[in-house]
Amino acid sequence: MAQSNVFAVIMAGGSGTRFWPLSRASLPKQFLALSTRRPLITETLARLRGVSTPKKSFVVCGAKHAKLVAKTLPSLPKANVIVEPEARNTAPAIALATARVAQLDPEGIIVVVPSDQHVADVPAFTASLNEAIALARTGVIVTLGIAPTRPETGYGYIKQGEALKSPTARRVAAFVEKPDRATAESYLVQGNYLWNAGIFVFSARAMLEALAAHLPESTSPLNAIRAALGTKKAAAVLAKEWKKLPSISIDYAVAEKATNIAVVPCACGWSDVGSFNALPEVRLQDTNGNVVSGALPFVIDSKGCVVLGKDKPIAVVGMTDVVVVDAGDAILVLPKDRSQDVRKVVEALKARKLAQYL
Amino acid sequence: MAQSNVFAVIMAGGSGTRFWPLSRASLPKQFLALSTRRPLITETLARLRGVSTPKKSFVVCGAKHAKLVAKTLPSLPKANVIVEPEARNTAPAIALATARVAQLDPEGIIVVVPSDQHVADVPAFTASLNEAIALARTGVIVTLGIAPTRPETGYGYIKQGEALKSPTARRVAAFVEKPDRATAESYLVQGNYLWNAGIFVFSARAMLEALAAHLPESTSPLNAIRAALGTKKAAAVLAKEWKKLPSISIDYAVAEKATNIAVVPCACGWSDVGSFNALPEVRLQDTNGNVVSGALPFVIDSKGCVVLGKDKPIAVVGMTDVVVVDAGDAILVLPKDRSQDVRKVVEALKARKLAQYL
Repeated sequence: MAQSNVFAVIMAGGSGTRFWPLSRASLPKQFLALSTRRPLITETLARLRGVSTPKKSFVVCGAKHAKLVAKTLPSLPKANVIVEPEARNTAPAIALATARVAQLDPEGIIVVVPSDQHVADVPAFTASLNEAIALARTGVIVTLGIAPTRPETGYGYIKQGEALKSPTARRVAAFVEKPDRATAESYLVQGNYLWNAGIFVFSARAMLEALAAHLPESTSPLNAIRAALGTKKAAAVLAKEWKKLPSISIDYAVAEKATNIAVVPCACGWSDVGSFNALPEVRLQDTNGNVVSGALPFVIDSKGCVVLGKDKPIAVVGMTDVVVVDAGDAILVLPKDRSQDVRKVVEALKARKLAQYL
Repeated sequence: MAQSNVFAVIMAGGSGTRFWPLSRASLPKQFLALSTRRPLITETLARLRGVSTPKKSFVVCGAKHAKLVAKTLPSLPKANVIVEPEARNTAPAIALATARVAQLDPEGIIVVVPSDQHVADVPAFTASLNEAIALARTGVIVTLGIAPTRPETGYGYIKQGEALKSPTARRVAAFVEKPDRATAESYLVQGNYLWNAGIFVFSARAMLEALAAHLPESTSPLNAIRAALGTKKAAAVLAKEWKKLPSISIDYAVAEKATNIAVVPCACGWSDVGSFNALPEVRLQDTNGNVVSGALPFVIDSKGCVVLGKDKPIAVVGMTDVVVVDAGDAILVLPKDRSQDVRKVVEALKARKLAQYL
């Protein structure tokens, strides 16, 4: 059940290129139906119903995606779309959303989640959030740490410290950068490291205090923005003051510096849906390990492929572990384990100034 | 130079599926620009200018392709499109075309060529045809035999016999069926075997005599058709008599039985353009051995691929020896050496009654 003073903040400022040609500057990953038939951001809002409601949920995004957010999430009040004047990393975005919540309820609890992740086990996720919310009510800043399932080198890790008076939470001993392979393997063996998924739970009061303490240069612009919120001057003040906020992640700005920070371990089938290569872990596969979509896919004598079609026939014969994507106005073929190399295509399109495909 | 009584007959009754999704029932291979920027049939007509002219050229095709032939070959007189009431293999088609030529010139020499082949060295091809034409004027039925360049198991072979009073021609010792790999290799080593390319040169008189001698059941319907040619009854008589002609290849019906048959060896960079796998042998490759077409191909870190795009981006990254085809309304991806397996897609489309893609 949603609790009365729990607010959700969905971070939708991302503009990745790792799902080109499906993702575009005008349609970043969070708006794609990558894990289910609904866009990731739609699933994200739905997933939070266990702790909050759409009316108490906010989405932070860039100006060019504001209309798309409203259209994609019809249950979200339009006023709850918080537009960043420009992308300045997560700390200013969270500070702005926290200011909005603080105006409604200074004791409000805020659950911050990225808009573009997948969670298979929503009850487990909700249980972890509820433990985090209970801790946050005591003034602690809490992060969810994902129980690692492989020696991933693409994520930051959280080292668990001493136990707290909470069923599973522990003090954060350290946030650690993306490790090399050997280090990642040792983390997996040691068992006390968790993946940093960018999910935070805190009271508005605790976050504003933490920002004042650890990012003091944010205090003056943030106060100006808070004072103008809800007035006719709000947009003008935000535009002016936003530039003064440092472009920094909440991890660097607050999480790594705060002392009252805890982590709740969570094994919930989480995925950051980082590339086409991640789709087999979040989607149903056929008996040959293929992930297939589209109106007329013909996947024959093939295994381990990711075949994403549109309305027309997409035939893949005798292939193993390749990605084939039809976006309607562009086609991509590459080995699944080279999914990251889609950036080479994006770079080539940029070099040739083919903006309509970016 | 074209000689005054040399006629060309271009066989365009084919309806293969090996170039799906580019080829369709309404657009078979001969109408595709597979080897150059022009359709194969256009190249075929142009290639024959060394021995004949469009006005003395005929195209034999099915009813549903007659308009397309006329449109594709504007230099061909419309009356020179010979429509088969139904496909009955090559013997009836050649018999019908021969009847047409015999009406114009009973001593006329006829060069029969498939409409869907590629020839890199046209002067060498023309020289071979000219030798064949000179022999045909003596009443001999001549075939061009392609000097083999590999132990191909997909073609029939011609075993060369004794030399004739002609620069390079030899009597045909035997037509042999498609061999197995070991036999094909022995043919290549022996050096006296040539590929049967379906190219024949003969006088109208000699062919009509050969048909009468070796395919006597064709005489009566053929005489009825010849008598009606150019009259108002032509279409009705053709429709009625055509069914009586046996559905058989000219090879079985005549070439393998005739005794006055010779072969002119020809090394002219010939290809039957049999599948996507054949395109690297007939088209320019980039420095990585890729054959690439389309308005916006992005072939990155890839080698040995065949990437045929249309107007939109087609990105292929990190792939080796694969075929990627965008036909606009359908997409195909398969390993180059499994190009024949495109038929599996065609079968699947048939099974699902998706006729619009066939």
